[in-house]
Amino acid sequence: MQELLDRIRQEGKNLGNGILKVDGFINHQVDPKLMDSCGKEFSRRFGNIGATKILTAEISGIAPAITTGFHMGLPVVYARKTKPITMPDQVFLTLTPSHTKGRTVELIVSPEFLAGSERILIIDDFLASGATILGLVRLAQTAGAIIVGIGTLIEKSFEGGREALSYLDVPVESLAVVSSMEGNQINFADD
Amino acid sequence: MQELLDRIRQEGKNLGNGILKVDGFINHQVDPKLMDSCGKEFSRRFGNIGATKILTAEISGIAPAITTGFHMGLPVVYARKTKPITMPDQVFLTLTPSHTKGRTVELIVSPEFLAGSERILIIDDFLASGATILGLVRLAQTAGAIIVGIGTLIEKSFEGGREALSYLDVPVESLAVVSSMEGNQINFADD
Repeated sequence: MQELLDRIRQEGKNLGNGILKVDGFINHQVDPKLMDSCGKEFSRRFGNIGATKILTAEISGIAPAITTGFHMGLPVVYARKTKPITMPDQVFLTLTPSHTKGRTVELIVSPEFLAGSERILIIDDFLASGATILGLVRLAQTAGAIIVGIGTLIEKSFEGGREALSYLDVPVESLAVVSSMEGNQINFADD
Repeated sequence: MQELLDRIRQEGKNLGNGILKVDGFINHQVDPKLMDSCGKEFSRRFGNIGATKILTAEISGIAPAITTGFHMGLPVVYARKTKPITMPDQVFLTLTPSHTKGRTVELIVSPEFLAGSERILIIDDFLASGATILGLVRLAQTAGAIIVGIGTLIEKSFEGGREALSYLDVPVESLAVVSSMEGNQINFADD
């Protein structure tokens, strides 16, 4: 998506070790107009997959999931990383490695909001190794729900996430694909 | 705001000890259309305060902050509770008690996104004791920014938050005001 590519070109920073700093418009400071455009684009790309619910992970998946849910007319569930006191004792929980935190984190969803009849569209900010998204897939499948699509704002295609998700045989859409981050460069698949 | 009041009446649950369960439409599962309506209403109420940026706290403040930012045409910054590797070493950090977690949590903002010239509108999901919002106020003031308004989806008026914020002498707007939660009831100020 041109608007997102332009923004990454203008403001994204390659911090080394595959770390892409986009916290001026996606995951610390957020540009709500850009997130709305991204939500509209996901809605266009996933309009015909029959999704009934959007699933994401706190924290930085929430903004694009909300705008996508708005444009598709679907509820959004964000998996929690700590269990709040408002959640029942019996939950769906999976563990996933967090490469930005350097440790394993929990992903927790209440069974109240993830039913076996759901057709789930997963939305997140990044597709890197795919570990977080695979955690969301496990949660949905444990509930008996079906994954019907996966959308991310930025894919780092050199980290293998798309291959890790290929067994699901569902559409995987990324609005910007970073193909390499050699030195201090950010190269896009479209270049 | 009638739409939010109706939703709390229909789906909110009083879990005792002042805990209001609204995780079917605000803070686990989220209704993006409702959040958009709330953002539009905040935009109407805060249209003339000259805000330049919206500040919230992860996690459940993000959804209403994004929709408010969209309707007001303002960027949103969410204070992080753990410092990500994309953030510089020198940050604004304050400690705040979390009554849902039973411990002290950190609120962290990068100086890159909180400048002394900013006029800050704080948006969050709940106004209870005001502790989290007072933490955001300290972060903004440390940066030299000015607080120009505070908006929350749900105020529990019996927990003293409004009084704790009164020294700021800025408009404090809540879209639903819960005046008491005796037994298993949820009573509203408008009733």
